[in-house]
Amino acid sequence: MSMARSSEPETFLAELGRSCYARGWALGTSGNLSAVVSRDPLVLTITATGLDKSSLLPGQFLRVDASGKVLEGSGQPSAETALHLVVVKLRQAAAVVHTHSVWSTIVSDLSAQQRGLWIEGYEMLKGLEGVKSHLHRECLPIVENDQDMTRLSGVVETRLAECQGAHGFLLRGHGLYTWGKTLEQTKRHLEILEFLLEVMGRTHSMVNP
Amino acid sequence: MSMARSSEPETFLAELGRSCYARGWALGTSGNLSAVVSRDPLVLTITATGLDKSSLLPGQFLRVDASGKVLEGSGQPSAETALHLVVVKLRQAAAVVHTHSVWSTIVSDLSAQQRGLWIEGYEMLKGLEGVKSHLHRECLPIVENDQDMTRLSGVVETRLAECQGAHGFLLRGHGLYTWGKTLEQTKRHLEILEFLLEVMGRTHSMVNP
Amino acid sequence: MSMARSSEPETFLAELGRSCYARGWALGTSGNLSAVVSRDPLVLTITATGLDKSSLLPGQFLRVDASGKVLEGSGQPSAETALHLVVVKLRQAAAVVHTHSVWSTIVSDLSAQQRGLWIEGYEMLKGLEGVKSHLHRECLPIVENDQDMTRLSGVVETRLAECQGAHGFLLRGHGLYTWGKTLEQTKRHLEILEFLLEVMGRTHSMVNP
Amino acid sequence: MSMARSSEPETFLAELGRSCYARGWALGTSGNLSAVVSRDPLVLTITATGLDKSSLLPGQFLRVDASGKVLEGSGQPSAETALHLVVVKLRQAAAVVHTHSVWSTIVSDLSAQQRGLWIEGYEMLKGLEGVKSHLHRECLPIVENDQDMTRLSGVVETRLAECQGAHGFLLRGHGLYTWGKTLEQTKRHLEILEFLLEVMGRTHSMVNP
Repeated sequence: MSMARSSEPETFLAELGRSCYARGWALGTSGNLSAVVSRDPLVLTITATGLDKSSLLPGQFLRVDASGKVLEGSGQPSAETALHLVVVKLRQAAAVVHTHSVWSTIVSDLSAQQRGLWIEGYEMLKGLEGVKSHLHRECLPIVENDQDMTRLSGVVETRLAECQGAHGFLLRGHGLYTWGKTLEQTKRHLEILEFLLEVMGRTHSMVNP
Repeated sequence: MSMARSSEPETFLAELGRSCYARGWALGTSGNLSAVVSRDPLVLTITATGLDKSSLLPGQFLRVDASGKVLEGSGQPSAETALHLVVVKLRQAAAVVHTHSVWSTIVSDLSAQQRGLWIEGYEMLKGLEGVKSHLHRECLPIVENDQDMTRLSGVVETRLAECQGAHGFLLRGHGLYTWGKTLEQTKRHLEILEFLLEVMGRTHSMVNP
Repeated sequence: MSMARSSEPETFLAELGRSCYARGWALGTSGNLSAVVSRDPLVLTITATGLDKSSLLPGQFLRVDASGKVLEGSGQPSAETALHLVVVKLRQAAAVVHTHSVWSTIVSDLSAQQRGLWIEGYEMLKGLEGVKSHLHRECLPIVENDQDMTRLSGVVETRLAECQGAHGFLLRGHGLYTWGKTLEQTKRHLEILEFLLEVMGRTHSMVNP
Repeated sequence: MSMARSSEPETFLAELGRSCYARGWALGTSGNLSAVVSRDPLVLTITATGLDKSSLLPGQFLRVDASGKVLEGSGQPSAETALHLVVVKLRQAAAVVHTHSVWSTIVSDLSAQQRGLWIEGYEMLKGLEGVKSHLHRECLPIVENDQDMTRLSGVVETRLAECQGAHGFLLRGHGLYTWGKTLEQTKRHLEILEFLLEVMGRTHSMVNP
């Protein structure tokens, strides 16, 4: 099933990538973005590795299959393509974004021992799909970082299965993954989770909280 | 009484909305903006719900009557239209803006037990209408967040009646509401209150204040 | 003596004002900027009061004489014109800028009891005119805020006479004044002092400094 | 050996300089940027001293030889040209950038007694050339600031020889130097080190880290 004409998701994601860079969430060629182009068979469009997100263009995306093999485009797919594929399969996501922000890095480290961050009481939570009240208790799983992508994908898969309601997860000292059922929802989830991570991080800095 | 030709307030507010987004005060489709188009009968122009403020356009506003019923435009009005209507009626406001900034979220939580934030000693206070000195003591009421809009509107109405001098109020863990007698004054009040909330929040982080 | 053709300082200062707004140093119509157009007799071009700095234009400046009387232009001069005139007379400044940043507001309050902020050990100090080493000890006088402009001008005049080397001063809970012998030097002094105020303010937030 | 046509490195570095200014890493005419134009004999293109980085242009670079003597262009080379030359010679760098950010200033001061900052556990480290894992332990040497450029160059040379793996160094209370084998790598190293310095600095502000 084709979700969009080929040029569309790349245009949307390239603009989102440049905007992440501008906010400091994707400096130093960090971060990657993907979208499902077709479900059966699975085709994912994803940023090539090592791109400067300040000038990300639609033509810098690659198409890969369910195993991560390149179908189309030049360059090498991101080393983290395996994580995007896990998310797309487990969550029926239309798009996945991964950012490296200062606050996600800090908060993922501060809360690593609890293996997750619990967020509640904030109106912004209602921007996450299916959340109806600020009293909702969102769990953002935190997974230890690992350079072995096969092992890391397995751990992420287990944690996502345990936390069915999660709208994202953190890799410790690394960054945030989030996704959505549409491109727009993915952008919204990203902005909301980054906002909440900043709120949580800054609250940790309060002397008399 | 018509305050402006129909296209004007929407153009001003759309630009203000995009600028709020750029400053991180309206991420993830949060925030809403409104202006009075006519007083008798009351007609309010207000952002439709769920809009990405990064690309807010004049055409994305709706016109509603005093009960919140849509008179013109497509989409659904913001769930918080009831709060805008309360402000417009009690304060004779020409416009109302509601933002979700990191600092308003944090400060509204830190000072929730006192049910308000008292701000004094800052020159910036003089940008609030009617304030003549930095020695002015501004009270920013803090109201507990609630998903029941009828109940919340009632509480806001009571608090605003108690705090006649307030130029805005905070919903706990949610964000800021402010207003003005003109569009320009509304923008000014917003910038001043967000500035002061950041100052108050950062001062809380000082080890030796 | 004419320092520049009439259009030049206003163009430079309007752009500087918009850039101050973008950095959050002149929100809510705060801040004002001036330049000397002629020395003998003294003619100062200065922003009219109440302008939104996000869209500051060269045409929004007024010309005033040594007593602050308007010679040219429409609108009212800033209430703080008297302070600009004090600086221009005492320091032979070609331009004066006054900003309201979050960090100058916080730091002016934190260090108010010492009546000044001593800054040393930073390479950035070398951007201040006449400073040759980071070991320089810069004193930034802090003056209590006052709505009586005549009285405040007198206090500022006394403090500036005491601190001959100062490149700026702070009004408590209010903001920064700085100046320069050229427009470019004024911009440089502003950026350097705002930078150093942020460094000093953030260092205050360190748990183990 | 010519690395690029003459116009290229200046165009790249001018854009990088303006982007550093926008992020607040090169305010008040601070910061400088250079690139190797030829290796044998060594020709370096470097920003003239005292330039406002908000409007840095390719034409504002100078060409100097291995001793820092100007070969081409008008204006005076940065006083810190000697440090650029040390880096270019010891590290075979194609480009060098020096920034003055708030966080590098603060962190260089906080960790000065240990004479270096050790950074580990962050995925962002992998953006540094040759680093394969977040478990890498990066040492960022910290050198006491000095206005005697000959003496300072000597100290930097010694410290870089001791820390063969370092991708940058800090001058205390002054700022960051980093470099790369290409222009793009230099930009990447800059963004990564500034990011990590902000993470380290903010973590110091945490009450319960």
